Amino acid sequence: MPQYDQLRAYYNGELVPVTEARVSVYDSALMFGDMVFEMTRSFRRQPFRLEQHLDRLYASLRLLDIDCGLTRTEMLQVTMETVEANLAYIEDELDYYIMHDISRGPLDFYRRVFPAGLRPTVIIAIWPMIEHIARVAEYYETGVHAIIPSQGAIPSRYLDPKAKTRSRLHYQMANLQAARYGPDAWAVMLDEHGYIAEGTSCNFFMVKDGALYTSEPRNILRGVSRGYVFALAEELGIPCRGANIEPYDALQADEAFLTATSFSILPVTRFEGRVIGDGRPGPVTKRLLAAWSEKVGVDIPAQAKYVAEKYMTQ
Amino acid sequence: MPQYDQLRAYYNGELVPVTEARVSVYDSALMFGDMVFEMTRSFRRQPFRLEQHLDRLYASLRLLDIDCGLTRTEMLQVTMETVEANLAYIEDELDYYIMHDISRGPLDFYRRVFPAGLRPTVIIAIWPMIEHIARVAEYYETGVHAIIPSQGAIPSRYLDPKAKTRSRLHYQMANLQAARYGPDAWAVMLDEHGYIAEGTSCNFFMVKDGALYTSEPRNILRGVSRGYVFALAEELGIPCRGANIEPYDALQADEAFLTATSFSILPVTRFEGRVIGDGRPGPVTKRLLAAWSEKVGVDIPAQAKYVAEKYMTQ
Amino acid sequence: MPQYDQLRAYYNGELVPVTEARVSVYDSALMFGDMVFEMTRSFRRQPFRLEQHLDRLYASLRLLDIDCGLTRTEMLQVTMETVEANLAYIEDELDYYIMHDISRGPLDFYRRVFPAGLRPTVIIAIWPMIEHIARVAEYYETGVHAIIPSQGAIPSRYLDPKAKTRSRLHYQMANLQAARYGPDAWAVMLDEHGYIAEGTSCNFFMVKDGALYTSEPRNILRGVSRGYVFALAEELGIPCRGANIEPYDALQADEAFLTATSFSILPVTRFEGRVIGDGRPGPVTKRLLAAWSEKVGVDIPAQAKYVAEKYMTQ
Amino acid sequence: MPQYDQLRAYYNGELVPVTEARVSVYDSALMFGDMVFEMTRSFRRQPFRLEQHLDRLYASLRLLDIDCGLTRTEMLQVTMETVEANLAYIEDELDYYIMHDISRGPLDFYRRVFPAGLRPTVIIAIWPMIEHIARVAEYYETGVHAIIPSQGAIPSRYLDPKAKTRSRLHYQMANLQAARYGPDAWAVMLDEHGYIAEGTSCNFFMVKDGALYTSEPRNILRGVSRGYVFALAEELGIPCRGANIEPYDALQADEAFLTATSFSILPVTRFEGRVIGDGRPGPVTKRLLAAWSEKVGVDIPAQAKYVAEKYMTQ
Amino acid sequence: MPQYDQLRAYYNGELVPVTEARVSVYDSALMFGDMVFEMTRSFRRQPFRLEQHLDRLYASLRLLDIDCGLTRTEMLQVTMETVEANLAYIEDELDYYIMHDISRGPLDFYRRVFPAGLRPTVIIAIWPMIEHIARVAEYYETGVHAIIPSQGAIPSRYLDPKAKTRSRLHYQMANLQAARYGPDAWAVMLDEHGYIAEGTSCNFFMVKDGALYTSEPRNILRGVSRGYVFALAEELGIPCRGANIEPYDALQADEAFLTATSFSILPVTRFEGRVIGDGRPGPVTKRLLAAWSEKVGVDIPAQAKYVAEKYMTQ
Amino acid sequence: MPQYDQLRAYYNGELVPVTEARVSVYDSALMFGDMVFEMTRSFRRQPFRLEQHLDRLYASLRLLDIDCGLTRTEMLQVTMETVEANLAYIEDELDYYIMHDISRGPLDFYRRVFPAGLRPTVIIAIWPMIEHIARVAEYYETGVHAIIPSQGAIPSRYLDPKAKTRSRLHYQMANLQAARYGPDAWAVMLDEHGYIAEGTSCNFFMVKDGALYTSEPRNILRGVSRGYVFALAEELGIPCRGANIEPYDALQADEAFLTATSFSILPVTRFEGRVIGDGRPGPVTKRLLAAWSEKVGVDIPAQAKYVAEKYMTQ
Repeated sequence: MPQYDQLRAYYNGELVPVTEARVSVYDSALMFGDMVFEMTRSFRRQPFRLEQHLDRLYASLRLLDIDCGLTRTEMLQVTMETVEANLAYIEDELDYYIMHDISRGPLDFYRRVFPAGLRPTVIIAIWPMIEHIARVAEYYETGVHAIIPSQGAIPSRYLDPKAKTRSRLHYQMANLQAARYGPDAWAVMLDEHGYIAEGTSCNFFMVKDGALYTSEPRNILRGVSRGYVFALAEELGIPCRGANIEPYDALQADEAFLTATSFSILPVTRFEGRVIGDGRPGPVTKRLLAAWSEKVGVDIPAQAKYVAEKYMTQ
Repeated sequence: MPQYDQLRAYYNGELVPVTEARVSVYDSALMFGDMVFEMTRSFRRQPFRLEQHLDRLYASLRLLDIDCGLTRTEMLQVTMETVEANLAYIEDELDYYIMHDISRGPLDFYRRVFPAGLRPTVIIAIWPMIEHIARVAEYYETGVHAIIPSQGAIPSRYLDPKAKTRSRLHYQMANLQAARYGPDAWAVMLDEHGYIAEGTSCNFFMVKDGALYTSEPRNILRGVSRGYVFALAEELGIPCRGANIEPYDALQADEAFLTATSFSILPVTRFEGRVIGDGRPGPVTKRLLAAWSEKVGVDIPAQAKYVAEKYMTQ
Repeated sequence: MPQYDQLRAYYNGELVPVTEARVSVYDSALMFGDMVFEMTRSFRRQPFRLEQHLDRLYASLRLLDIDCGLTRTEMLQVTMETVEANLAYIEDELDYYIMHDISRGPLDFYRRVFPAGLRPTVIIAIWPMIEHIARVAEYYETGVHAIIPSQGAIPSRYLDPKAKTRSRLHYQMANLQAARYGPDAWAVMLDEHGYIAEGTSCNFFMVKDGALYTSEPRNILRGVSRGYVFALAEELGIPCRGANIEPYDALQADEAFLTATSFSILPVTRFEGRVIGDGRPGPVTKRLLAAWSEKVGVDIPAQAKYVAEKYMTQ
Repeated sequence: MPQYDQLRAYYNGELVPVTEARVSVYDSALMFGDMVFEMTRSFRRQPFRLEQHLDRLYASLRLLDIDCGLTRTEMLQVTMETVEANLAYIEDELDYYIMHDISRGPLDFYRRVFPAGLRPTVIIAIWPMIEHIARVAEYYETGVHAIIPSQGAIPSRYLDPKAKTRSRLHYQMANLQAARYGPDAWAVMLDEHGYIAEGTSCNFFMVKDGALYTSEPRNILRGVSRGYVFALAEELGIPCRGANIEPYDALQADEAFLTATSFSILPVTRFEGRVIGDGRPGPVTKRLLAAWSEKVGVDIPAQAKYVAEKYMTQ
Repeated sequence: MPQYDQLRAYYNGELVPVTEARVSVYDSALMFGDMVFEMTRSFRRQPFRLEQHLDRLYASLRLLDIDCGLTRTEMLQVTMETVEANLAYIEDELDYYIMHDISRGPLDFYRRVFPAGLRPTVIIAIWPMIEHIARVAEYYETGVHAIIPSQGAIPSRYLDPKAKTRSRLHYQMANLQAARYGPDAWAVMLDEHGYIAEGTSCNFFMVKDGALYTSEPRNILRGVSRGYVFALAEELGIPCRGANIEPYDALQADEAFLTATSFSILPVTRFEGRVIGDGRPGPVTKRLLAAWSEKVGVDIPAQAKYVAEKYMTQ
Repeated sequence: MPQYDQLRAYYNGELVPVTEARVSVYDSALMFGDMVFEMTRSFRRQPFRLEQHLDRLYASLRLLDIDCGLTRTEMLQVTMETVEANLAYIEDELDYYIMHDISRGPLDFYRRVFPAGLRPTVIIAIWPMIEHIARVAEYYETGVHAIIPSQGAIPSRYLDPKAKTRSRLHYQMANLQAARYGPDAWAVMLDEHGYIAEGTSCNFFMVKDGALYTSEPRNILRGVSRGYVFALAEELGIPCRGANIEPYDALQADEAFLTATSFSILPVTRFEGRVIGDGRPGPVTKRLLAAWSEKVGVDIPAQAKYVAEKYMTQ
């Protein structure tokens, strides 16, 4: 197992034990959910699409009008330094997660708690990828069951999901609703018009007559993995485009899947109680997953299975 | 000045220095903005309407389906114990704030960081009321300028403001928009229908022809102070009711004010660039504030002014 | 058991076997879902609130601009005649359902199928109350579980639920969604603003601090049973009024129940996975049900239980 | 005239006289408007685009989660058998309509009426095309007058028009509104955003600067005839695409027309009281209609006129 | 006939011939529809409810943030002076209309056209009441036909109808739609929720079971005549209140009518093609109209008829 | 300076002094904001894109169902004649504005004021371009600050901005809100979905990664200048397309600008308080402005500066 007690997080310029990666209750992060974040994973110990994650991080900061005090170049540097400081404590065969968390900092009302002065809170934490992939390992074969909770996606004009922030209680509410259906039920939220928006931390894709469709980039987080599927599809010659996808369309799909940083691509084999295709992961889904695996040099489903078997039983 | 380094917060059963009232980045509080809270203030060192705050706290927990592990009675008890533990370090002439913060606890994915096991996070922090009231002291006389930001109130069906949670980045966004107008500009958000919903942590009232009107209890936090104004108005024989208030109505008002736990009642003397009434706090507003002051035994505006002069210059 | 093969339905002036109560596929009823209806039940063999049902029937006809060819007085008369023609075939201890079904009649395009000419289709069918009450018998004690499907109530400006029509596929869709939660899950739909509208053939009530609240009469069928609860409440001195009820409010309720012609009042003891009150039918609910039973001279829960035990096992 | 009394409809495995193509009032078809359907016409006695109609039929069934008991292949077979059984009774020079009607079957509450057991209701009826085309015969020359009723299209998230179901009272309501304008007034409904959705059983197209535009496939039935116009346009080299068409755009159109299975293409020469183009069917409209006629070997307007003159006067 | 060429209008401090009551194309009134107005009528030559009209005028000015340069007292004075200047030229038996029109004045871009400087435009014009009442004279007996155009009321958050301004093209569009139904068709617009908002210059009332209902004061002009009906109803002991009125409700009404300054009360005897009540003005409507007539000393319908007969034939 | 007192406007067939280009308060233009208009400017004394402006003028007239009495050809002719009649009084080095204003004419109620009869009001006025360009001269270098007012764009289904009419008080309201931010603040309104609609008389463009994006042509005036930018972009090989642009996207833009007839292209260098790009007009913006200048033979920014310096100081 990883040496969890040796893991260190970057915290406003210092490396601290991961147990110390904590935020004051007087920080705007908690006071207002006023924090942006990113989750980047590695493949073969190399951060995957870190540049795109940092691009989005700075886009989120800009929407929230937060100056985090680090340039994008500096952020890249401290990120890599933080990674380096942790690699020794995570088995070589394991990949890891980089989590960036940035808030506006403590509220001025409480400045007396922070004698060193107020400044944005910047945290970078590293975490071995065990649970995140082990728990979905079986779904690469069985697929998950997408269900539509009554909790809808918040329209972007109220709270823009394109900025990846911590004010996302509605994701949790959707998760709670889905959980009542059973462990393999994953919430896929509709937007105000009834179009499929997104899962609660993932994007939705469907395949119909050989083409890929995914939700338009409005009421969703524009996932880095979503973008990568576009890139893979282009290489593989599979048409891929954003569309207004309604449950009617999803029910006619030949295949469907979700994308997220942690699991890359996860098949959806049931949708609102109906079976998609023949109830098993479809050929386009598998082709994309294989291409992704090849590109990054990791058999993604196999890695998940291996980690599940070796690390989750301890 | 208060002895800040002696202040202690309740943290899952223990009293810790206020600097240690911190939440892990792996806690659902930060991961999803999945935390409920309450702010209760004292008058003459007695918590004001604590029962109502606890009622709302448990209503919020219920909506989020969080079992915090403490009954309401136990919560009251540990709250009072926490208050007691701090009183010695806050000057007798000062009042204080009690902040309850409760989350679902750390995510199961990260259980390795929490060897003692996962459980909800319950924090109760005490804070002397200095900045919170000092900064508004002048507005009891001049009133504030209510402005309508383009950031609207999130409809309750997406994220219910009646539950007091930390997923409220949109309040911060509204604050940022208002701040561009100047320091005395306070954001008052409209709901999707154009009705005045609420300020970013306060409720809106207006006076017309001797009667009080406030936003209907839908797309707002149902403020404890708001409820107290209803009670005071009844005692004073002032009609008071919820209404769909549009900017047109607000502009025809004789008086307007905001209510919040920290300042109780704060006059609004300008609205979207137009003067309300004669531009000074109106008679009904002043009557309510006087009645409140009398009830709690504290001259509220005077206290704010006193604290501002004595404590803010240090 | 009732002599089902002796039951007769009124069909455009004639009495026909109930198996012949059938509508042509060329009738507007099927072509457009263009049919209004009413369900009236008896208590002690007397139709209950038949006048109110007929009032609503004619209100529905008026919205659809259908002239059914019978005055309200004539309709009452043929209804009672149809009842009379059937009573002998239903055990004395059983109550019955009267179903009125009225459509605009066959489409003119297909007049050749109807050599006798085109006219509105008027059907009145009588049915012994066995399954309708037997299947809910247990819920008078356990209560049902109200769940909110993602299928929302259609806003009345598109298709007005106040007219009781057969174009209500969305009720069926909501039922299908609820059924996935288990047999005791009953769908309670939200309207476009997130207010609780109605069940898929019933109205929602909640009790809070001794008062009754039910959905405002907008995006709902204004149930005859709903109206009767208002009347009972007035007699019992229980305040009762229409309100915008949101899930937040329902979760804070002391009690909740549904009303419908078939079961009168059915307790709701769980709501979206949370327990209401102490998880059992509450005192106000029981008081209303007792008053109703007394008024009609039928112990409503006992009747359901009796019918379930005696007739459902055959 | 056709021998109407010899016409036979498929009814759950049997052929019955068309007068017996009737559905019980206890069937979900009537209880909930819970029935899907298709209308397919023939050209030169051959079903036109029957495959596409069956595709849509099964898509509708899937959305409603109805298993009709027949595979698509079986459905095709019984459809053709039903056609065969009727051809002898319809003059050779006439075309016919195939209507598929499928419901979930009788409600379980009323199983005693159906001693043979409950199963989905499947009806296939054949009807000679006389009235359907005769009544529009004149409009191939004069065009119809499109008017916008206040009845709007139901947003698909509430009741999806892409599934062709019998819960469509709102179409009838729109028809009633249009009828007040006169016999040549055809209702064209707007969706919630003010875009032209569809006619009450037809799709809307407009021509501007040589290109074809039709409503986007969201709040509409995706008509088989609509799809055929896309195909014809491609062959003829006419650009054709879905668009958000507002009344402003329609009023600037050079031409407009409706498409439906019965009439194929029907010119719109007036729109909300204003004349479109020069008030006569335009060149692109006529070119498409000519191409369609040629493809199917039937001069469509001429057939309508011939049938009107020969058969409607009897 | 009145001596039209002697009529004088107040124009920024001067009295000018009515033909000179003209506004520059460079005035904000035309550039932006940026003008507020009021229409006040006389009864027995006395302005009726002029105070209320001036109250609303200043409320409108306040919403538009226009300082017209005259206090409310001065406005009253110049209004009465303008009336005085015109009375001699209007027959004693006739009443008159006072029209106030106030804009922000010419745009600064075009100051060179206005060498005397830029200032708000204030116009007060007097007009004998002939056409305005003569044209509706017959409807006091027959009633008008209320129809719902597809043009909806603009939600007040976009353009508040409570301010009486000249940006109201949508009223004209609704009028054009209604006119297609015939001369007695009056447009009654729905708001975004399908509630009856208002006519295109009048308010809607309905009577049901002896009580009066009118649209809630949100998406409407809060008519001075509407307010007077409330006052009359109170005197007559008729319950009267604002309500969300849907077409379903209006169709169940016993009576309905419109109110406006020009005609006071006008019966509605048909609604969307259905007859209201028995198709003639109802008893409550007539009672209110009689009370109004008595209050003002003018038999309102008789005056309209008299004027129609005597003055319209010339 | 131009000889303003010699300027003549076309007024229903006659040339009148510009001071006489006035509209009666009884004209539908003022009564209902029922007037369409166009603003066309010249470059080097030649009307620019006059054909496109007239196309849109007639499209607007068509939506409003106004027959102005002049064919499009006649309108072009009288427009050019009016221009000719004024050129002598405007310095050769100056350009001019042509304003078309057309209303339905006086209301029939007031026909006595118009003894010559009622007919549409057609006005064509010529104005030297001094203030219009001088006041923005500095912004070609500094850029303007785009801010989002709480006043939203009226959805086109209520009042279609694609028709250029005088009912546009909401533009003025948005201007008033923006003005509170300072003189360089320009209102850019959002539509109901939170997409950037338009400025209060201009269109919004942004540049990202070398491509141009502008609001989709729905809730906006489809600007003639907007169309010209599409044409220029095509010539310059810059991709340009309509898109749903949200504030999130605008904040990530490399450049942004506004287009309007008066100023052609005006850089936006700040957006909601954040700097766009490096805070100065960007390369694509400048390239487009240069291309435009070259096409029309006028250095547009230089002309504005020259006019500002020479003419505004007099």
